[in-house]
Amino acid sequence: MKKKVHLGIFGLGTVGTGVVELLLKRKQMVGDCQVVLEKVAVRHKRKKRAVSLPSSLLTTSPEDILRDPKIDTVIEVMGGVNPAREIILEALRRRKNVVTANKALLARAGSEIFKEAMENDCYLGVRASNIASYRLIESLSFSPSRISKLVGVFNGTCNYILTEMERKEEDFSTVLGRAQKMGYTERDPSDDVDGYDTAHKLIVLLGLSLGYFPPLGSILVEGIRNISPLDVIFARELGYRIKLLAIAKIQGNDLEARVHPALLPRDRGLARLEGIENGIELRDEVGLEIGMQAPGAGKYPTATAILEDLICVARGRKLAFPSDKKKLSLRGMGGIETQYYLRLSALDEAGVLGKISCVLGEHGISIKSVLQKGRDEKKRKSVPLIMLTHEAREENLQKALKRMEKLPVVKEKPVLMRVEEGIF
Amino acid sequence: MKKKVHLGIFGLGTVGTGVVELLLKRKQMVGDCQVVLEKVAVRHKRKKRAVSLPSSLLTTSPEDILRDPKIDTVIEVMGGVNPAREIILEALRRRKNVVTANKALLARAGSEIFKEAMENDCYLGVRASNIASYRLIESLSFSPSRISKLVGVFNGTCNYILTEMERKEEDFSTVLGRAQKMGYTERDPSDDVDGYDTAHKLIVLLGLSLGYFPPLGSILVEGIRNISPLDVIFARELGYRIKLLAIAKIQGNDLEARVHPALLPRDRGLARLEGIENGIELRDEVGLEIGMQAPGAGKYPTATAILEDLICVARGRKLAFPSDKKKLSLRGMGGIETQYYLRLSALDEAGVLGKISCVLGEHGISIKSVLQKGRDEKKRKSVPLIMLTHEAREENLQKALKRMEKLPVVKEKPVLMRVEEGIF
Repeated sequence: MKKKVHLGIFGLGTVGTGVVELLLKRKQMVGDCQVVLEKVAVRHKRKKRAVSLPSSLLTTSPEDILRDPKIDTVIEVMGGVNPAREIILEALRRRKNVVTANKALLARAGSEIFKEAMENDCYLGVRASNIASYRLIESLSFSPSRISKLVGVFNGTCNYILTEMERKEEDFSTVLGRAQKMGYTERDPSDDVDGYDTAHKLIVLLGLSLGYFPPLGSILVEGIRNISPLDVIFARELGYRIKLLAIAKIQGNDLEARVHPALLPRDRGLARLEGIENGIELRDEVGLEIGMQAPGAGKYPTATAILEDLICVARGRKLAFPSDKKKLSLRGMGGIETQYYLRLSALDEAGVLGKISCVLGEHGISIKSVLQKGRDEKKRKSVPLIMLTHEAREENLQKALKRMEKLPVVKEKPVLMRVEEGIF
Repeated sequence: MKKKVHLGIFGLGTVGTGVVELLLKRKQMVGDCQVVLEKVAVRHKRKKRAVSLPSSLLTTSPEDILRDPKIDTVIEVMGGVNPAREIILEALRRRKNVVTANKALLARAGSEIFKEAMENDCYLGVRASNIASYRLIESLSFSPSRISKLVGVFNGTCNYILTEMERKEEDFSTVLGRAQKMGYTERDPSDDVDGYDTAHKLIVLLGLSLGYFPPLGSILVEGIRNISPLDVIFARELGYRIKLLAIAKIQGNDLEARVHPALLPRDRGLARLEGIENGIELRDEVGLEIGMQAPGAGKYPTATAILEDLICVARGRKLAFPSDKKKLSLRGMGGIETQYYLRLSALDEAGVLGKISCVLGEHGISIKSVLQKGRDEKKRKSVPLIMLTHEAREENLQKALKRMEKLPVVKEKPVLMRVEEGIF
């Protein structure tokens, strides 16, 4: 018995083109499933494209797909939140299965979209939304044991920039400029470098695993724009590498979720990802640990993940989505506990370290190691002082930091970075 | 609507006990599915066990489970090929879903078992058969793009032994003896250390991915018993680590599958697995690469993988198994191409290296690097000579080796090991 899918596609950008190319190359057979491409909705019908389709397959009206009863499945690869959101919801209401790579949308409206899919008994495929974990993304939604810790490097652009900053000892804007010239980044790189792409992916994974999509506005999202080459180099000297991390921890009903650059011990796990590589490490309640890494997302990897969703559709796979969600509360940043890296610009005179340690001590923070660098000739009498702390509560650290800033021996605003442990 | 599974279990060893413990702990709720434990078949009803079950639930007769129409799903965790094979087939014929961790059985009878499951429209869950890849094991069976390369470290015992051999510079039997004393290995470790467990897991993964289970007798399976500490140390000096690898490569209809120890570049990918850790690296046709690592299999990780299969059953997931299998032919070992590590015990005199290089050259094998160690005081005039070759065809290498053995300057049977590249 042939399994058949009648397909409509919204969007014919890079990923959409990749999907169509793979479908044509395979003569519309995906595994043992026949995929009949019925219609592609595009903005401009006459635009030159990398893939040639008969113009009868193209339309500029989404309605031509949504209202076509023959079409049972749609792929949304137009990107952006609107009108993608309305198109997906309408497709689901019309009982069409939906496959999407749109993490920005899922991060914002995942709850609503999954609910609509469940209610209409439709499949909702989101494998392509996070290539680092695409082969485990669906199993997250029905694993019997909940995640207890997740650490991920989800953005290839950021990882490329940080890798180059370390390798060539260059600053952020130099590397970004080069990456832009070489077409490695979007023209507007802010979604990538300011951490939002990473945050979207984290929210989607948490949503799939917990049935709860933490609101974007309620989690810390820090990007990599302000990372100084100095810190990249000091981190290396101390045996660490700086990575932009997505972090989540779950204890009981307490959820901690955050995105920021952090120091990772350099020779293992995610710290070893180079260039545009992505990776994820997970630990679940019973202690099962899984690490995955993948080269960066691209046209064909993403298109392949989408085809895998199509096979699920063709095979009649049911959508799984955690319905037994416990009420989770999001822990504020003040309440997190981790280790910290501090770089101070301090006067090079006797007793300075004592004064600073005192402030930390008064806030219950103990110092793990100190690195004092030779005098900086340009800034008379002030030298970089680097400290790693033992585990401390963020709110105590922030209070101590404010006190330190006011010390006359401290010359600039101290630099703070968190130090994390991966799982592997 | 409650999803309900009525469960029979065959076997109450370590994994079976783990499953029952997790079920009881969760009050027989797994995710949103209710699992009713109906019956457990054991060999001895009165044996002391880590988990206490009412004796009415225990039976010594498999028929009590197979003939019970109430039971819709069975877990087979008794191990061994017989009678497990007959029990699984009979359960499937009676349209019961089956979950099993039995890779030795699946490697031998996977084709027959999957066929029976498909014909009876039953789910066959095999996640627990290979913990290194359990979160991708099912997706392998319906991925739209075929594997092109797979490299795995699938046996925790071997990886532990090899790690210790390097760390403490000890020989195989010393480490094995200690591992046995500490209960890290089976009393009879041959399945592990002779490579069969690894081969079983490789065959199951290939079967799921290709629809073709290569016969155990037709692939090279070499274990780690004969690895000398000398080679472990020389490998380290050359920048490699020795791992027991499962390797598969697919080009067109040509399948290469083998299990043997090999040198891997030491600072990346699978080479970095320590102790009982497991890992896998995959590349598929479109170039999508995935690496996964996991701590060794154990009671709870394995039991959790089994519960995940139960959720699939409860949710009515259909079994996917590649039906569009192309005819694959297994490439003989003579036809493989890889790099080689050679250790010769050669006379320490002028012209020796020349003679040996000549033999290699005549077989079209070129040398990448040579490491000549100082004179060994105990064996007068013979010294270890280590060579790494560039990529060569195995049959040429084997011919050259035979010629070398006959050279008067070569004092012992040369040691040969393959040098592999992982994916990451």
